[in-house]
Amino acid sequence: MKGFNAFVQLFLPKDKVFYSLFEEVADSVAKMGSLLKEVVGEPDFDKRAALISQLETQEHVNDDLTHRIFTELGRNFITPFDREDIHYLASSLDDICDYIYAAAKKINFYKVNPNDPGIQKMADLIEQGSRQIRSAVKELRNMRDMRTITDALVRVNSIENQADDIFDMSIERLFETEPDAKEVIKKRDIYQVMEIVTDKCEDATNVIESIIIKYA
Amino acid sequence: MKGFNAFVQLFLPKDKVFYSLFEEVADSVAKMGSLLKEVVGEPDFDKRAALISQLETQEHVNDDLTHRIFTELGRNFITPFDREDIHYLASSLDDICDYIYAAAKKINFYKVNPNDPGIQKMADLIEQGSRQIRSAVKELRNMRDMRTITDALVRVNSIENQADDIFDMSIERLFETEPDAKEVIKKRDIYQVMEIVTDKCEDATNVIESIIIKYA
Amino acid sequence: MKGFNAFVQLFLPKDKVFYSLFEEVADSVAKMGSLLKEVVGEPDFDKRAALISQLETQEHVNDDLTHRIFTELGRNFITPFDREDIHYLASSLDDICDYIYAAAKKINFYKVNPNDPGIQKMADLIEQGSRQIRSAVKELRNMRDMRTITDALVRVNSIENQADDIFDMSIERLFETEPDAKEVIKKRDIYQVMEIVTDKCEDATNVIESIIIKYA
Repeated sequence: MKGFNAFVQLFLPKDKVFYSLFEEVADSVAKMGSLLKEVVGEPDFDKRAALISQLETQEHVNDDLTHRIFTELGRNFITPFDREDIHYLASSLDDICDYIYAAAKKINFYKVNPNDPGIQKMADLIEQGSRQIRSAVKELRNMRDMRTITDALVRVNSIENQADDIFDMSIERLFETEPDAKEVIKKRDIYQVMEIVTDKCEDATNVIESIIIKYA
Repeated sequence: MKGFNAFVQLFLPKDKVFYSLFEEVADSVAKMGSLLKEVVGEPDFDKRAALISQLETQEHVNDDLTHRIFTELGRNFITPFDREDIHYLASSLDDICDYIYAAAKKINFYKVNPNDPGIQKMADLIEQGSRQIRSAVKELRNMRDMRTITDALVRVNSIENQADDIFDMSIERLFETEPDAKEVIKKRDIYQVMEIVTDKCEDATNVIESIIIKYA
Repeated sequence: MKGFNAFVQLFLPKDKVFYSLFEEVADSVAKMGSLLKEVVGEPDFDKRAALISQLETQEHVNDDLTHRIFTELGRNFITPFDREDIHYLASSLDDICDYIYAAAKKINFYKVNPNDPGIQKMADLIEQGSRQIRSAVKELRNMRDMRTITDALVRVNSIENQADDIFDMSIERLFETEPDAKEVIKKRDIYQVMEIVTDKCEDATNVIESIIIKYA
């Protein structure tokens, strides 16, 4: 499939290659958001480890895609939107994937039970956010259905706000109820990384917004 | 007042809108620096909560202003200084406000008594830094009184260095005197966020410096 | 020597000044990587303090060089490679130096014994990474020996991956074996800052890669 995509891209007008690459990245983001939700819903440590290993593979796929976007950016004089917007969008989508993988990895690594209200709600929000990101990115090619894009942007903004509140509530509960400071450090780190995922989703939508203001 | 400003901006040459917006942001930064000092000087939890809620409102005002700067940047072909400098300056001023609010929020949230030498000194430095930022930004429009700008830049640089030292001393004392690791985590987090405010002030002055090198 | 370099730079074609400045920065990076390794190999607290103070001096030298790069960027219309690449490269090299100094400072500051497998291995990787950075930066001027550059890029990438693994292993061991949560906080902070050094090395090589894709 990867080979087929590369083959197709040979025949695309040079600046169209960015849309294809961004769409592959957007699929990757949505897939990782959905896998993270599976990770936190899986009670068994070893089965969780297998899911986390799928996330690792996907994260490598995404690294390669991001690297190809940067390479194309260096090679192509003509780009479908501002070079710095392509740079920022690729970086922020890559950050989403990096932090999703980091969150999953920390759960097993710290041997934390993910059956925790803060972790569960954060994973829900991340899954929703990653789907909205995919919708918005996929509309960039045509920019016909502006409603889909703006809806996605509004939703990601709301998701980020909800994640902030869940972070605050979870930390407050953690300090009040967890007597073991080492456990506090572990869970706080996981909440933090999950909250960063939603920040990075918002960063990505901010770039998308600046693109549509200029070109729509 | 907001309506009046928007009305006035309609009649401004298009690139002048940036000066007006940046001046509103600079007022916002200075106001938040001053509110933070009130927060850490207020011994009563509920009165502190009321001040923190004022900070939250101001932070939302600032988010809107920043968003308008980015929107104008997308719309205007002609800008008074380099597009990327406008972008960096708006981002760094917004970061100052975000971290000031975050610092205030954490104080009540963690139920930490702000009557702590590290927190007090940091709040003094942040208040001074935010006033220097306002002075420097307000001179950008005319660039006549370069002395005011360069003085502000030198002072913010010194404030950032002092904040580093206060951070180091506060952390050292914290680890030596605080037996409860959970308290260590809370206070360290507050010191850290306050120190980041002064870093962001320095980021803002670095952008201002690069603007005046090019245009003065 | 500083005076002599400044004198020589007066006679350089204006855009060549960037190569000279970047080469001085690259020497600075390598020197700091090597000093950090000395720091973690020195069992005596006071002798370590003397080495850390050398690092501080070198970090100030590097701040000045970075500042001169930004000033030249503001003054020169013609640059040997894209302005934003110069900006990113200078920032990432400066970050490497900042985090090396921060890591060293934290070791004495927290009174942590650096004779710890995680700290030792991280310092080895940082020293190797900083030497690779120097090699790659020094080839930018001629871009003749592309092999040297690409070798350095591949090695820094591998170093960053190894540092990730050492970070994970060290944190895992720390939580399992260290009963004192305050010690956990201290060592985790040191591992984290050391790991960031290798991230910043990778950031620098990513910029170098994007420069050679465009100009080679």
